[in-house]
Amino acid sequence: MSARVVLAYSGGLDTTVAIPYLAKMTGGEVVAVSLDLGQGGEDMESVRQRALDSGAVESIVIDARDEFADEYCLPTIKANGMYMKQYPLVSAISRPLIVKHLVEAAKEHGGTHVSHGCTGKGNDQVRFEVGFRNANPDLEIIAPARDYAWTRDKAIAFAEEIDLPIEQSASSPFSIDQNVWGRAIETGYLEDLWNAPTKDIYAYTEEPTLGNAPDELIISFEGGKPVAIDGKPVTVLEAIEELNRRGGAQGVGRLDMVEDRLVGIKSREIYEAPGAMILIKAHEALEDVTLERELARYKRLVDARWSEEVYDGLWFGPLKRSLDAFIDSTQEHVTGDIRLVLHAGSITVNGRRSNHSLYDFNLATYDTGDTFDQTMAKGFVKLHGLSSEIANKRDREATN
Amino acid sequence: MSARVVLAYSGGLDTTVAIPYLAKMTGGEVVAVSLDLGQGGEDMESVRQRALDSGAVESIVIDARDEFADEYCLPTIKANGMYMKQYPLVSAISRPLIVKHLVEAAKEHGGTHVSHGCTGKGNDQVRFEVGFRNANPDLEIIAPARDYAWTRDKAIAFAEEIDLPIEQSASSPFSIDQNVWGRAIETGYLEDLWNAPTKDIYAYTEEPTLGNAPDELIISFEGGKPVAIDGKPVTVLEAIEELNRRGGAQGVGRLDMVEDRLVGIKSREIYEAPGAMILIKAHEALEDVTLERELARYKRLVDARWSEEVYDGLWFGPLKRSLDAFIDSTQEHVTGDIRLVLHAGSITVNGRRSNHSLYDFNLATYDTGDTFDQTMAKGFVKLHGLSSEIANKRDREATN
Amino acid sequence: MSARVVLAYSGGLDTTVAIPYLAKMTGGEVVAVSLDLGQGGEDMESVRQRALDSGAVESIVIDARDEFADEYCLPTIKANGMYMKQYPLVSAISRPLIVKHLVEAAKEHGGTHVSHGCTGKGNDQVRFEVGFRNANPDLEIIAPARDYAWTRDKAIAFAEEIDLPIEQSASSPFSIDQNVWGRAIETGYLEDLWNAPTKDIYAYTEEPTLGNAPDELIISFEGGKPVAIDGKPVTVLEAIEELNRRGGAQGVGRLDMVEDRLVGIKSREIYEAPGAMILIKAHEALEDVTLERELARYKRLVDARWSEEVYDGLWFGPLKRSLDAFIDSTQEHVTGDIRLVLHAGSITVNGRRSNHSLYDFNLATYDTGDTFDQTMAKGFVKLHGLSSEIANKRDREATN
Amino acid sequence: MSARVVLAYSGGLDTTVAIPYLAKMTGGEVVAVSLDLGQGGEDMESVRQRALDSGAVESIVIDARDEFADEYCLPTIKANGMYMKQYPLVSAISRPLIVKHLVEAAKEHGGTHVSHGCTGKGNDQVRFEVGFRNANPDLEIIAPARDYAWTRDKAIAFAEEIDLPIEQSASSPFSIDQNVWGRAIETGYLEDLWNAPTKDIYAYTEEPTLGNAPDELIISFEGGKPVAIDGKPVTVLEAIEELNRRGGAQGVGRLDMVEDRLVGIKSREIYEAPGAMILIKAHEALEDVTLERELARYKRLVDARWSEEVYDGLWFGPLKRSLDAFIDSTQEHVTGDIRLVLHAGSITVNGRRSNHSLYDFNLATYDTGDTFDQTMAKGFVKLHGLSSEIANKRDREATN
Repeated sequence: MSARVVLAYSGGLDTTVAIPYLAKMTGGEVVAVSLDLGQGGEDMESVRQRALDSGAVESIVIDARDEFADEYCLPTIKANGMYMKQYPLVSAISRPLIVKHLVEAAKEHGGTHVSHGCTGKGNDQVRFEVGFRNANPDLEIIAPARDYAWTRDKAIAFAEEIDLPIEQSASSPFSIDQNVWGRAIETGYLEDLWNAPTKDIYAYTEEPTLGNAPDELIISFEGGKPVAIDGKPVTVLEAIEELNRRGGAQGVGRLDMVEDRLVGIKSREIYEAPGAMILIKAHEALEDVTLERELARYKRLVDARWSEEVYDGLWFGPLKRSLDAFIDSTQEHVTGDIRLVLHAGSITVNGRRSNHSLYDFNLATYDTGDTFDQTMAKGFVKLHGLSSEIANKRDREATN
Repeated sequence: MSARVVLAYSGGLDTTVAIPYLAKMTGGEVVAVSLDLGQGGEDMESVRQRALDSGAVESIVIDARDEFADEYCLPTIKANGMYMKQYPLVSAISRPLIVKHLVEAAKEHGGTHVSHGCTGKGNDQVRFEVGFRNANPDLEIIAPARDYAWTRDKAIAFAEEIDLPIEQSASSPFSIDQNVWGRAIETGYLEDLWNAPTKDIYAYTEEPTLGNAPDELIISFEGGKPVAIDGKPVTVLEAIEELNRRGGAQGVGRLDMVEDRLVGIKSREIYEAPGAMILIKAHEALEDVTLERELARYKRLVDARWSEEVYDGLWFGPLKRSLDAFIDSTQEHVTGDIRLVLHAGSITVNGRRSNHSLYDFNLATYDTGDTFDQTMAKGFVKLHGLSSEIANKRDREATN
Repeated sequence: MSARVVLAYSGGLDTTVAIPYLAKMTGGEVVAVSLDLGQGGEDMESVRQRALDSGAVESIVIDARDEFADEYCLPTIKANGMYMKQYPLVSAISRPLIVKHLVEAAKEHGGTHVSHGCTGKGNDQVRFEVGFRNANPDLEIIAPARDYAWTRDKAIAFAEEIDLPIEQSASSPFSIDQNVWGRAIETGYLEDLWNAPTKDIYAYTEEPTLGNAPDELIISFEGGKPVAIDGKPVTVLEAIEELNRRGGAQGVGRLDMVEDRLVGIKSREIYEAPGAMILIKAHEALEDVTLERELARYKRLVDARWSEEVYDGLWFGPLKRSLDAFIDSTQEHVTGDIRLVLHAGSITVNGRRSNHSLYDFNLATYDTGDTFDQTMAKGFVKLHGLSSEIANKRDREATN
Repeated sequence: MSARVVLAYSGGLDTTVAIPYLAKMTGGEVVAVSLDLGQGGEDMESVRQRALDSGAVESIVIDARDEFADEYCLPTIKANGMYMKQYPLVSAISRPLIVKHLVEAAKEHGGTHVSHGCTGKGNDQVRFEVGFRNANPDLEIIAPARDYAWTRDKAIAFAEEIDLPIEQSASSPFSIDQNVWGRAIETGYLEDLWNAPTKDIYAYTEEPTLGNAPDELIISFEGGKPVAIDGKPVTVLEAIEELNRRGGAQGVGRLDMVEDRLVGIKSREIYEAPGAMILIKAHEALEDVTLERELARYKRLVDARWSEEVYDGLWFGPLKRSLDAFIDSTQEHVTGDIRLVLHAGSITVNGRRSNHSLYDFNLATYDTGDTFDQTMAKGFVKLHGLSSEIANKRDREATN
C-alpha cells in the first residue's frame, strides 16, 4: 500500500514545504488538514489553497472553534486548569482536538501516516503522538523536524530545489502558537531569564499601564459553564472572545514563566490568555461559594493533577477521563453570577450571588439573625485538637 | 489554689473590660500579655498601662516582631502559604506565637488559666485553644465571648457597673485583625456577598487606580529566605515592611474572598497583605527556576496541605512539623534574584537569575549551542504513552 | 407538637429499656426501627415484638440485607475500602443505611426526634448524627448514652423502677457490632495492647491453625461487581455470605489493630470479615490487571480518601459522592476471574483472566512473539531521568 | 582516551561473556565489579576470579551487605515501601547501591564507561542508567542486551568464537534476581496469568501448607529501626536474615502479582521476601500506635509516593530526598515492641507495647478510669458535619 500522509497543516513556511518533502520521503501522497481554532490571522481558504498549490492531494479546513470551546476549553474552566498554578494550557488542549480531526481525516481519506511539525524538545510532539497512538495505533507517525532534523534552512533549500514558490518574508524572531484560548510566545532574547519581555511580543493584550478606565462586568455560570456576560447569553466561544477583547484592552492575562517541560528541561514562556484567565478566576470564585469545604479542598488536588495530565499529553488517557468524572460531578451547583473588575492587568472579583450558594448569612453574621450555636464550638475545638494534644504530651514525656 | 488568668490582651475595649470581669468570674487575678506583631496603631506602653489601670496584677508587653517574621512569616514564605490558593494566613500564623508567649507567661507568673477574646464561630478560638492544649494541657481555658456570651454591650454595662473608666469611642463598624504580615477586615455590609468593598475599609494599601508610576524591584533570596531588596540587605521583618510600603503604594495585595472556616461555615473576608503577596509570588517564581519538576509538583501538594493545617489551628501538630521537614529540605537551592514590577494592584515577575538555576540555556535554546539530543525523544514519547495506548486499545476491543 | 422518637432499635437490653426512658424524657412516644443487615442471631420478629412489649407505639423491622450488600458493601468493594489500609469499614457502612431507614420512618410515622444508643467517645455517634442532619436537619437528635450518661446500670435500675420485664442475662464482657460484612469486637482485657485476643471472641471464623485442607475458588467480577463464585451466579449478598462461610472455615479475615478514631483517640479493635477481605483482595488483583498504571496509582489515593470519609461519618457528604463518581468511572473494565486459595488465615491469589486485561503477552514475554521495541527504551530512560540528572548536576556545582 | 568499561558483574554466563565482548566493541578494557548483597549462592572469590579469567583487567568484589541493609533496606522499612501496596522493592533498592559502587570504581580505576546487562523492557535499565547519570553524567553507558540485542545465544556463539571456557549448564527456565531483602522470579509459563506458580520456583520459603507449629516472636524498634528480636540485639542485616529464616520456614512472604512496569507494560512477577514483609508489617503496626492520626494519614500518601519514586528508578532524585526528610521526621517515636505470630504463610500482629505510645488507656477504656469527657462530643459532631449538612440542604433546595 502506498503511503498517504495526513499532515497537521498550519499554512506557514515549514509545513508548506513539508508537503512535497513528505511526499518525497514516503513516496506517497499528502493530505493537509487545517483547523480554525480561533487563531485569527490569514483566512482559512487561503491556507487551504496553499496546501493544494504545494502538492497536497487533499486539503481540508475545519471550523472547530465551537468544538474547541465546548469540548476542550470548557473542561479546562471546570478544572480551573492551570499547569504550575499559572499556565492555562493554551497549546496543551488544542493538540488533542487536532489529533482527533487528523485521525478522522486519515480514516476518511485512507491515510496511512500522520505527521506534525514539532521538534523533539517540546511538549507538543508528545501530545500529538500519544494522541495518535491512543486514537489509532495503526497510523505511522512522521515527525520530520525531529526525526529528519528538518529545519527552516533545509526547508528553504528544498523549496528552491523543487521550485516551490514560497513567500519568504523576513523571518520572524518569534515562535508563536495561538488559538482563541490564548497565545504562546517564545523568542531568542527571552532565553536569557533575566531579560524582560518587550512590548512588541504581545498581540492579544494592550499594555496594562495604558490607563484605561476600569471595566466592571458580570459573568453568569450554569453548572460550571459560562452562559452570560452582563446578562447577555453567550456560547462558551463567545464568552472567551468577548473576554479576550475586554480583558485584552485592560492588559489582563499576560504571563511570564519558567515552565517544567515534560521532556525534562525548563523553558521560558510568555503567554497571553485574557479570556482564559478571567473565566477561570470567576469560576474559582463561584466554586468558593458553591462547593463544600472538603470537596473544594480535594478538588484543588484533582484540578492540579488534571492539569498535569493534560500538559503531559495524556488528554485521552484513562486517568484524565476519571478525573473528568470527579470534576463533572462537582459542577452541578456551580451556578450563579460573579462580578469582577478588569483594570491595568488585574482581575478583581468583588461580588458573587447564587441560588446555589452555601454561604448562609444567618450562620455567618455577627449581627441580628445569628443562628450559629456557639455552645457547640467548645467541644469541637477540644476533639479537633485532641490527637495533636496527646501527641505533644507524648513528645514531652517519651522515654526510651 | 486561687486562679491566675493569663489574658491575651489587645488594649481594646473588650479585653480591657475582660480584666475585671475575669477576675470576678474566677475569684482570682489577671495577668495581661500583649504582643507587638507590627500591627502599628497605639504605642505598646499605653496598652501596658491600661491593663494595669483596669486591674491586671501584671501587664507584659513583648516586642515579637522579629520573632514573628523569622519563625512564622518565613516558614509561610517557604511553604508559599495560601489557604484556598489565596489567603496568606495573616491571622492564622499570629495565634500560635501569641499562644507561645501566653504559656511562657503562665509559667513565669504562676498562671492557672489562659483566656482569649474570640467568639465561637471563628477560626481563632481553635488556633488559641488547640495551641494552649498542645503546649500545656494543664492550663484551664476561658473564652468569655463564647462560653459566657460576653458581648460588647455586656462589657459596657459591666464597665459602668464597676466604674471602670473606658473610652467609649464611636463604635467602629469594622472588625479588624492586623499585624505586619497583613490585615483582615470584616464588616456588616460585606455579609451580603454581592456588595463590593468600599474604599474606607483599607489601611495598608492605596487605591490601585491611583495611577502611580510602576515600581520595579529586585528581591534576593538565600535558601528560600528574602535577604536583600534592590541589593540592600534586609531582615525578614524589614523585607515585609518595605514591601508593605512599596506594594501598598501600588494597591497590591488586596483580597476579597469567601472563605471556608474550620467550624463549617463560609464567610466573606477582606484582606490586605502587600508584603506577603509579593514575597510569596517572588518565592514561587524562584522555585520555578530552582526546583526539579517532580519535586515542585509534589511540593505544591505539600504547600497546600501545610496551609490547611495552619489555617485549621494545627501549627503545633505533628503533621505540620513533618511537612516543615519536607519543605525545609527543598529550600537549599532556592537562592537567587527575582525582578518584579508593582503597579496598579498587580505583581509581575519579569526576570530571574540564580547560580542554583536548573534552567539550562543550552538544553532550552533553539539557537546555536543546542545540546539537547532530540533523537532521545521518539522513544520517550512512545513509552511515556504506552500504558495509555494499551488501555485505549482495550477500551475499543473489550468484550464480555 | 408532642414528641415522637424514632429509635435505632437493636433488641438488646440498652435500647429496650431506652424505649420507656425516651418516652418519659420527652413526654412523647417511641417508634422502634430494626434492620436486618445479616447480623444473624435472634429472629427479627422477636425483636419487633419486644419493642412493642416495652412500650413502643410502632415497631418496624426491615430486611435490608440486599440493600446493604448492593448499595453499601459493593461501593466498598469498588473502593477497596480499607481504613488505615486494614479495616473494611464494617460498622462504618452500616450506619448510613440505618440512618436512611430511620429518617424514612420518621417521615412516615410523624417522627420529631431520632435516637441512637452510641456513647460519646466512639465513631458511630458521628455517623448517625451527621447522617441525620444531612438527611433531615429538622429532626432533633437524642443520644441518651452520651447526653444523659445513660449506662447499663441506670438502664437496669430504670427497668426495675417501671417493672419492665427484661431478661438480664449474665452480662457479656464483649461489646459486639456485626452484620453480613463483618463483626467488630471490643472487650476489656484487650484494652491492654500487649494482650493477645483469646479464641472465645471469634464467631465468624475458625482458628486458622485447625489444619483444614486449602480451599481454591474462582470469583468472577463484572464492572467491579462480584457476579459468580466457581461459575455459579451470585448476588452481592450471596457472594459475601458464601465467602464468609468458606473464608471463615479457613480462619481468613481476622484483624487485630489499633485504630485512629475520629474523636481523637486510639483504640484497640478486633474484627472478623472473611467475605469482605476476600472480595477486596480479589477485586484489587483484578484491578491490577485491568486498570492502567497512572489511573491505578491515583485510584489508590482516592480509595484511601474514600475510606477516610466513610470512616469519619461522611457517607452522605459531597466529597464522598464525587469520589464515588471517580471510582465508578474506573470500574467499567474490572471484569474477569480471579482464582485464589484460602488456607490457614491466608488469601492467596494465583490466577487471573480477563477479556478486559491490559496485560499483553506479546509485550511482556521474553520468548518468541516479543513485540516490544526495545530501541525505544534508551531515549525513554534518558528523558525520564533528565530533570533529576540536571538537578544532581546543579547540586554538585551550585555556588552562592 | 581508550575506553575502560566498568561492568556490573554477576558471575553468570551473560556478563561473563560480556567481558570480552565489551572489550572488543569498545576496543578498550573491562573492570568487573561484583557486590555481595546477601544473595547467597556461589562464593564471591570464585566470581572475582572468573571475571579475570574472562579477560577483565580488574575484578572487584565488595561486601555491601551491611551497607545495603542500613542504607537501603532500613529506609524502605521506615517508608513501609510497597509498590502497588504489595511489592517490597526487592530489586528496585539494590540497583542504586550497585550504581554507587560502579561509579566509585570508575573514579578509582579510570573508567570511561559503565555497563549493565539489563534488557530494554524492564525497570532495572532505568534504575541503572538514571542512577549513573545522576551520579556522574560523564560516564558513557553501554547496555549490550538492549542496544546491541545481545542475547544468550549470541553470547554462547561469541564464547565459542573466542574460545572462552564457559560452563554451559542446562539453561535454567527461571530468571532470578535475589538479595537479602528478597527474591524475584520470572519464568515462561507464568506469562500466562492463569497459571499458578509451581513449588519448584521458591527458594527462600517453604510451602505454607507444611503444617509447622506457629512461631511467635517479638521485634523491637528504636526510631523506626529494628534493633532486637526476642530481646536479642540485632543489626538490620541480622534482623532481615533471621526473619528470612524464621519467616521462610512458615511460608511467609510469597507474592504473586501483576505489576505495572515503568516502561508501560504489565508483567507477572513472583517474589519471596519473608524478612521484608515481616519487618514492614511490624513497623506499620508500631506506627499505628505511635503516629498521630493526621500524620499517619498523610504519611501513607508519602509512603506510596516514595515507593513509586524508588520503583521508577529515581532513588537519587530530589523528590525522593525530600520524601525521606518527611519520613525521617516521623520516626523519632516509632519505638517499642511488636509481638507477632508467623504461621502457614500468615503474619499476625497480636501485641504492641511502647513508652512512646499515643494510646491512652484512660481515654479509651469503657471501664473504671475513663477520663474522656463525653460532653465534648456533641458539639464536635455538629461542627464536624456542618459543612456537609449545609451542602445537603442546598442540594435539596437549589433552584436555578
